[in-house]
Amino acid sequence: MKKMISIAIVVIGIAVVSCNNSNQQIKSHLNKSEENLIFPKGSKIESDHFHGTAWLHWLVKSDSINHIGSGSVTFEPGARTSWHLHPDGQIILVLGGTGYYQEKGSPKKILRKGDVVTCPPNIPHWHGASSDKEFIQVAITSRLKGPTEWLDAVSDEEYLAGDL
Amino acid sequence: MKKMISIAIVVIGIAVVSCNNSNQQIKSHLNKSEENLIFPKGSKIESDHFHGTAWLHWLVKSDSINHIGSGSVTFEPGARTSWHLHPDGQIILVLGGTGYYQEKGSPKKILRKGDVVTCPPNIPHWHGASSDKEFIQVAITSRLKGPTEWLDAVSDEEYLAGDL
Repeated sequence: MKKMISIAIVVIGIAVVSCNNSNQQIKSHLNKSEENLIFPKGSKIESDHFHGTAWLHWLVKSDSINHIGSGSVTFEPGARTSWHLHPDGQIILVLGGTGYYQEKGSPKKILRKGDVVTCPPNIPHWHGASSDKEFIQVAITSRLKGPTEWLDAVSDEEYLAGDL
Repeated sequence: MKKMISIAIVVIGIAVVSCNNSNQQIKSHLNKSEENLIFPKGSKIESDHFHGTAWLHWLVKSDSINHIGSGSVTFEPGARTSWHLHPDGQIILVLGGTGYYQEKGSPKKILRKGDVVTCPPNIPHWHGASSDKEFIQVAITSRLKGPTEWLDAVSDEEYLAGDL
């Protein structure tokens, strides 16, 4: 009987070790996948036109030859821009997380990975993260008709409007 | 002894089932993560200006208000565009895989996830997947100065140049 107990313990041991190894391989791959964002988070945005903490990684800076600028912005939960407008419009590509986009006079929209927003020229709007999840977006902005025009901050009432 | 064998079998059974459940949960999350590309693959491109199989999902179509068009393109291994130019330039954001980008007169560059290319106006170039890996890119193209101008196909010699 002792022999049987020993065999059983060895077999269980092998099963447990094998299971753990298998899990570790998968978890290791999973972590790599989760950490492996498309673009770096970049630098913390130091601007009065942002509320909360947001990060910017420039993809392309506009210049005299290329009038389109593009940056990857990561908003931490609750972070958002002030109201603002772009004289030549803006395209927003959502890479991850959950965020909001609102044009003046319209209800805010919830944005998730894969969503695309086309913001027409000169339309005041804001964007940012939801209150409990970060939000990662690529902004594509033509500077052909001038730089971004910044307006008032988004109040907490505006930010939370429509939430349950 | 029979009792011991029964107990051992039950314990091993529980260990194996528990291990499988645990693996399945992680694998299920992993598959979701791997399958969960940012943008859909879209529709197969039917164009004489492409060699091999490529897929296009429009993110934004340019119009009279917004002059920037953007699409996510997935090139299968070996697939590439013909030589072409954009009168107002183009930005390429690499979302995944391994691809090539070459401007006329310069060696081809290898592109990987997170890379960004700014192609100046009127510079003939081509892009596509490497021969053994797919390539996923977002193209951002201003149509302000006219549509893409298509040129010759990229020969196999040009495509393979510089490879070991």
